[in-house]
Amino acid sequence: MTTILFAAPALWAEYQTELPKALGEAGVAAEVVTDALPETVDYIVYAPSSPLQDFTPYNRTKAVLSLWAGVERIVGNATLTQPLCRMVDPGLTEGMVEWVVGHTLRHHLGMDRHIVNPGHVWDPTCPPLARERPVTVLGMGALGAACASALRALNFPVTGWSRTEKPGCLHGEAGLTEALQGAQIVVLLLPKTPETENLLNAERLALMPEGAVILNPGRGALIDDAALLAALDAGQIGQATLDVFRVEPLPAEHPYWIHPRVTVTPHIAADTRASTAARVIAENIRRGEAGEPFLHLVDRTRGY
Amino acid sequence: MTTILFAAPALWAEYQTELPKALGEAGVAAEVVTDALPETVDYIVYAPSSPLQDFTPYNRTKAVLSLWAGVERIVGNATLTQPLCRMVDPGLTEGMVEWVVGHTLRHHLGMDRHIVNPGHVWDPTCPPLARERPVTVLGMGALGAACASALRALNFPVTGWSRTEKPGCLHGEAGLTEALQGAQIVVLLLPKTPETENLLNAERLALMPEGAVILNPGRGALIDDAALLAALDAGQIGQATLDVFRVEPLPAEHPYWIHPRVTVTPHIAADTRASTAARVIAENIRRGEAGEPFLHLVDRTRGY
Repeated sequence: MTTILFAAPALWAEYQTELPKALGEAGVAAEVVTDALPETVDYIVYAPSSPLQDFTPYNRTKAVLSLWAGVERIVGNATLTQPLCRMVDPGLTEGMVEWVVGHTLRHHLGMDRHIVNPGHVWDPTCPPLARERPVTVLGMGALGAACASALRALNFPVTGWSRTEKPGCLHGEAGLTEALQGAQIVVLLLPKTPETENLLNAERLALMPEGAVILNPGRGALIDDAALLAALDAGQIGQATLDVFRVEPLPAEHPYWIHPRVTVTPHIAADTRASTAARVIAENIRRGEAGEPFLHLVDRTRGY
Repeated sequence: MTTILFAAPALWAEYQTELPKALGEAGVAAEVVTDALPETVDYIVYAPSSPLQDFTPYNRTKAVLSLWAGVERIVGNATLTQPLCRMVDPGLTEGMVEWVVGHTLRHHLGMDRHIVNPGHVWDPTCPPLARERPVTVLGMGALGAACASALRALNFPVTGWSRTEKPGCLHGEAGLTEALQGAQIVVLLLPKTPETENLLNAERLALMPEGAVILNPGRGALIDDAALLAALDAGQIGQATLDVFRVEPLPAEHPYWIHPRVTVTPHIAADTRASTAARVIAENIRRGEAGEPFLHLVDRTRGY
């Protein structure tokens, strides 16, 4: 019987059913515990926020399996000499695609005026078809490319922009101008780097057609907040639906909360889901037990 | 020269350019008129709301080509003995797919609590993934099949139900029970026939899991309105988003307008677009002139 120490107390409620279920489906006979003598532990399922920080006594442990995609808080831990795997959750991409496609269609269809319609207005004006609604995706990494592909499948004409040159995408400063000028809906899916901070500033917001919509499920720092609020007040930007912020939870006094043209979603666009993440963990334990190579093994010399 | 009577006065403004253009592209030499001696008319392009209701004198007419997808207002007309084709407009299908996918994602993601959030609640609970959200589509004709396919592309597990046997679909009364029992979101896309009227009655609403959502972009009469309101009040049905009603515009005093669990959209899910519909009409006239079978011929015994 394989012993798995679940060292991520805040996530236990979510995983206590999903993980044994996924292990069963993977054909691994294992016991998942939240406390164990270190020398009995075969695998550690881990969150970097866990109280467990000294891995020295876990001399029998075959792998530490992180539940987080980012491992920057773990790779510097000198006591962690066991193989370390990070989480690559297919559910995270799927969740992002669902949020982006859902909010794109919400704005495309003008749903809000039906959801909130105190005057009981019956106005049977049809929206244009998706094929007549250009959408731009800024950032064409794994998440951006998946969103662009799902939007294209619904007939939206999608322009992708990437900082670096990529096939089928606009790029660079001139490409960004073109991408913003033609977009009725812009989706921000860039990583946060010194180059992308405040990428959407006053000058670039002014390039977009009047009334354009911004969706930001990427990083809060991509937007110059003061410039966006001014553009919303001026009607230059018609609506902004924001999932990420410089400070989270979004502070109670932040103007986004009360702006009539802003929707705040609480950093839910992409989250690791227990149901899909548990299967990734179970598959790695199955591999460990079968002597097969682990998936998503972290290269400690590169740091990811 | 083929004579085409355009008997849909309210739509003439939209079609007077589009229809001759589409006929020209289809290679049909025809004259489109809004008035003609009945015995000179080869084809009638028709809207059920037209003043033309007696088809008896049109003894030379080879087909009546409806501009509407629904033909329930025509099939009972005993004077209409000519072949009757309904409209299957690709623009209409696209619009329907966009409405259905958009509102499915809206409910799936729980958007309403972010769109209307007066308490500024930050609750980062993630929704399940689409793959964990079973959707049932009742009615697997052209529109239902297109919606099912678009929802499946977003990973929703979709069950299709059809009144008659179709490959890959549930059917019949036992199939309907199964389709409703498993559905968290049910999309109604059945035609209105004597068999489908009040299909969603108290008994069938009770089969659905508690809190299930109903989307009705099909026909108002598919739902027993009193039963739905009772099920919404009881919490058995969590939300209903309705685009079609027994009386339209929905009367000001109708309880749907003020029910907190109902969203009314003003019959906008699918509208026929002149540009795409004119091409369908032109293709059917080309077929008629070439002696080929008509597309979308109505089976008068089934009623659609």
